[in-house]
Amino acid sequence: MAKGLTSRSESFPEWYNELVRKADLAENSAVRGCMVIKPYGFAIWELMRDQLDKMFKETGHVNAYFPLFIPKSYLSKEAQTVEGFAKECAVVTHHRLMNNPHGEGVVVDPDSKLEEELIVRPTSETIIWSTYKNWIQSYRDLPILINQWANVVRWELRPRLFLRTAEFLWQEGHTAHATADEAIDETLTILDIYKRFAQDFMAVPVLPGVKPLHEKFPGAVDTYTIEALMQDGKALQSGTSHFLGQTFAKAFDVTFLSHENKQEYVWASSWGVSTRLMGALIMTHSDDEGLVLPPLLAPFQVVLIPLYKKDDEKEKIMEFSIQLEKDLRARGIRVKLDQDEQKRPGWKFAEWELKGVPIRIAIGSRDMENNQLEFARRDTKEKFFVPMEERFDRIEGLLKEIQDNLFNRALKFREENTFQANSWEEFQALIEKGGFVYAHWDGTTETADKIKDETKATIRCIPEGIAEVGKCIYSGKESGQRVVFAKAY
Amino acid sequence: MAKGLTSRSESFPEWYNELVRKADLAENSAVRGCMVIKPYGFAIWELMRDQLDKMFKETGHVNAYFPLFIPKSYLSKEAQTVEGFAKECAVVTHHRLMNNPHGEGVVVDPDSKLEEELIVRPTSETIIWSTYKNWIQSYRDLPILINQWANVVRWELRPRLFLRTAEFLWQEGHTAHATADEAIDETLTILDIYKRFAQDFMAVPVLPGVKPLHEKFPGAVDTYTIEALMQDGKALQSGTSHFLGQTFAKAFDVTFLSHENKQEYVWASSWGVSTRLMGALIMTHSDDEGLVLPPLLAPFQVVLIPLYKKDDEKEKIMEFSIQLEKDLRARGIRVKLDQDEQKRPGWKFAEWELKGVPIRIAIGSRDMENNQLEFARRDTKEKFFVPMEERFDRIEGLLKEIQDNLFNRALKFREENTFQANSWEEFQALIEKGGFVYAHWDGTTETADKIKDETKATIRCIPEGIAEVGKCIYSGKESGQRVVFAKAY
Repeated sequence: MAKGLTSRSESFPEWYNELVRKADLAENSAVRGCMVIKPYGFAIWELMRDQLDKMFKETGHVNAYFPLFIPKSYLSKEAQTVEGFAKECAVVTHHRLMNNPHGEGVVVDPDSKLEEELIVRPTSETIIWSTYKNWIQSYRDLPILINQWANVVRWELRPRLFLRTAEFLWQEGHTAHATADEAIDETLTILDIYKRFAQDFMAVPVLPGVKPLHEKFPGAVDTYTIEALMQDGKALQSGTSHFLGQTFAKAFDVTFLSHENKQEYVWASSWGVSTRLMGALIMTHSDDEGLVLPPLLAPFQVVLIPLYKKDDEKEKIMEFSIQLEKDLRARGIRVKLDQDEQKRPGWKFAEWELKGVPIRIAIGSRDMENNQLEFARRDTKEKFFVPMEERFDRIEGLLKEIQDNLFNRALKFREENTFQANSWEEFQALIEKGGFVYAHWDGTTETADKIKDETKATIRCIPEGIAEVGKCIYSGKESGQRVVFAKAY
Repeated sequence: MAKGLTSRSESFPEWYNELVRKADLAENSAVRGCMVIKPYGFAIWELMRDQLDKMFKETGHVNAYFPLFIPKSYLSKEAQTVEGFAKECAVVTHHRLMNNPHGEGVVVDPDSKLEEELIVRPTSETIIWSTYKNWIQSYRDLPILINQWANVVRWELRPRLFLRTAEFLWQEGHTAHATADEAIDETLTILDIYKRFAQDFMAVPVLPGVKPLHEKFPGAVDTYTIEALMQDGKALQSGTSHFLGQTFAKAFDVTFLSHENKQEYVWASSWGVSTRLMGALIMTHSDDEGLVLPPLLAPFQVVLIPLYKKDDEKEKIMEFSIQLEKDLRARGIRVKLDQDEQKRPGWKFAEWELKGVPIRIAIGSRDMENNQLEFARRDTKEKFFVPMEERFDRIEGLLKEIQDNLFNRALKFREENTFQANSWEEFQALIEKGGFVYAHWDGTTETADKIKDETKATIRCIPEGIAEVGKCIYSGKESGQRVVFAKAY
C-alpha cells in the first residue's frame, strides 16, 4: 500500500517528504539539518556515483582526496569565496573534550582552543589550490584533471531531505590548465557529461546554459548549469560547471612557466553534482503510488513475487522463482526475489510499487500451468501476460522501453510546461502557473532582482545562441536574447 | 631513479616518509595532521575499497550514510566511549563567520554559537545506535547489516601519513542482531573477510586473534584483530572487528520484541579498516628502489616503455605499443603506455620502479626484429626475454606468480621473525631484535603495562586455541596460553 501517501495535487512538498521517508530513501537525523541516507536510497546514489565516475575516468579524470578542514584564513584569500561560502558553515574551534569537573558528562576543554579556527569544507577550491601551488611549476605539470567524492557542509536553516541539507555528498572536480581555452573546453566537456548522465541514465531532460552573472558561483568567470523541471512546475538546478578563470590561481599565487618561457597564472575549472540529484530523480518521475525509478538506476530492476496457497504449490513455485532469479542475475539484471513469508502478496505489490521497481513479475500456479507469467510495469501500471519462453527477451526489452518512456514522458511534460511570455502580465500569469518561461530581459541584476521580488521567479539560465531581438518584459529595455525564468528549489 | 630514497637499513621511518611522497601516494596538507591522498595513492585505495565492498555485499551487507556530526551529549551516553574517543576530537562550536569588524578577513560570529557542540565523528556507534532505535521494533527488523564508507577525525599530535592522521578514510560496519551468537558469528565472519582480503589481495600475511581486555575497543565485549608484521619488525594492527554485546543497545535504549514475545536489548558488532592499510601494504613489500605492489591492487599492472631513437623506428614501435596496450586492456589488464616524449627511457624505468608497477615491458627495434620483448619483474628485479607469441600468456601467468611470490616472501619474513621467549631475558633480547614474540603472560593488565613500560612491547593478540601451560615471563605466575608480543605502530 502507498500507506496513505499524500497525493501530489494535495500537497507536492508533503508528498515528497513522505515519499522519501516511506520508500526508505532517507530521513532526518538527530543533528539538525543532517540526513541519514538509508540503504535503499544509498543504493541508488551508488549507481549514480559509479556511472558518473566511469564517465569522468573515460574523459581522463582521476580521483584524489583533500582534507575535510580548511584554515579560516584560506577563505579570506578569495574575496568572493568569503561572500559566498564563509558565512553559514561549521566552525571547529577546539580539539579536546574533558570530563565535566562540575557534574555529569563531558565539556569542551578550554585549553584545547585552536590557534586558527578550521572550517568544515563547504567546497574545496581554496584547500585544493593551496595544494596545487606545490604541484605546478611548468606547462609540463598541466593539465591537472582531479575529482573527489566527498561530504561537504553548508549550514542550512531550512533543510529538506536531499534538496538542501547541512551535510551532503557530492563530487567536486578541480582542474588546472595552461590556457583559458582549455579550461573553458573542460568546463563544457563536463557540462555535456552532466547532461548526458541526467538524460540517458536519470531519464531527466535538462536545459543546459550559462547563469546570469548575479547567479554565478563565487569566484567563477562563468557558471554553466543544467536545469530540470519538476512535476510541480519548479526548476531544480541539477549540476554546475564553472570556468574559474585565474581567480584561484591569483588568490593562491599559482603560476607556471609557459611554453614561451613566461610565468603565467594557471587557468581553472570546477564542477559538481550532489545528492540533490536524488531529489531531481524523485520529483521528475514518481507518482501518487510512490517512487518510479529508471531501470538504469534502480537497485532492483525486476522484483519476483511468488504466489502460492498450499505447500505442494510452494515447492514448485519457489524452485522456479529461484531459478529465474539466477537466470536474470546471470544476464546482468538486478533482481529481487521477495521470499518474505510474513507478508502477503498484496502487501508486497504495494511495497515494491512504493519503492519504484520497474518490472514486477508475479509467479503463480495457474499461470505456470498456462505457461505464462504476469508482468506489471511500474511506469504505466499496465499488467499483461508474457509467454514463458519470451520472458528474458521481454524483460530486457521492457527495461529499455521503460527507460525511454520515462525520459519521453518527462520531456513531454517539460514541453507542455515551457512558455514564452511577451508582456509583464503574461509573464506573471505564466510564472504563477509554473514551468519554464522564456522571456526577454535587459541584462541587469537590478531588473532580475525586481522580477524575483515580485514573482519569486529567477533566471535559471541563458540557453545557448537563440538570438532574438526584443524588449525586456519588466523594464522594456532592449534585449538580444530570451532567458529562461522559473520558480526554483 | 629512486631519487635518493633513504635505504631501509639507514632509517626505516625516513624511507617510509620519502617513499610515500616520492611515489605520489600522499602528502601532508596545510592543515596539521590531515593528509592529501594523491591520485596514484587514491587509485590503490579505490581498488582496496572496491574489493572489500564486493566481499561485504557478497555476505549480505548494504551501504548507507550517517551524519558527520555527533551531538556532544551522545558521547557521554556510553561511558567507555567517553574514555576512548571523546578526548582528542574536532569540536564544532559555531555555525557562522562574519567580516572582521575591526580589520581584514573573517572572524567567528559570536552570535552563531551552537546550543550543543557537535563532534566530528571519531567513529559512529553512537549516532548509528541512536538511529537504529527508530528502526528496530521486533525480531523481524533484525538483523541489520550496514556498512558505511566515510571520513573520521581523531586529533593526532604526532601524525604520520596513512598510519596515523587526524582525518582518515575508512569503512565502518555496524550490525544489529537478535542473539549474542549471531552477533559473534558476524564479528568472526568479518574478521575472516579482513584476513582473506589482507592475504589474498594485499599479499600481507596476518595473524588473527582476540585483543586482551585492556587493548579492546571502548564499549566492546571482545575486540578481534588482524596483525601484520612490517619489515622493520614492528607490528601493524590492520583491521578490527568488535563484538559489542548489548553495550550500545543499553546506552541508547534499543530493544526488540523477541520470538518469545519479550522485550530484549539488541546485540551488536562493529568493524573497520582504514587508509592505514596503505601503510601495511607499503611497509610489507616495498624496497630501497621504491614501492612494490601486488598485481591485484596495482593501478597499473603492466607498464609499456617504447624505445626508439630514429623517427622511422618510432612509427613502428608506437603502432605496436598502442596495439599491445589495447590487447591487454581487452584482457582486463590494467596497463599504462608511457608515451611521454620529454623523458628518457632510463628515467621512466626508475620512475615506474619507484611506483611499484609489477611488470615492465620495454619495446625496442632490435627485440622486435628478434620477435621478442624484454620483461622486467618488479618483485625480483629479474629481466628476461619473452617470445612475442607468448606475451599474453606470460603476462597473465606472471601477474599471478608475482602476487603469490609477494605473499610467500612476506610469510617467510614473518616466520623468520617469529620467536618464542621462555624467560624475561630472552624476551627482552627478542623484542629488542624485533618481530612477533610468543610468550606466556599471567593475564593481568598490570603485568602487560609493566612489560610495555620496560620494553615498549604490547600484546598484539591472543591467537586462537594453542593451549600450553607455562609461567608468565614477567611475573612467573601461571599461564594457560602464549600470547603474541611486539613493538607496534
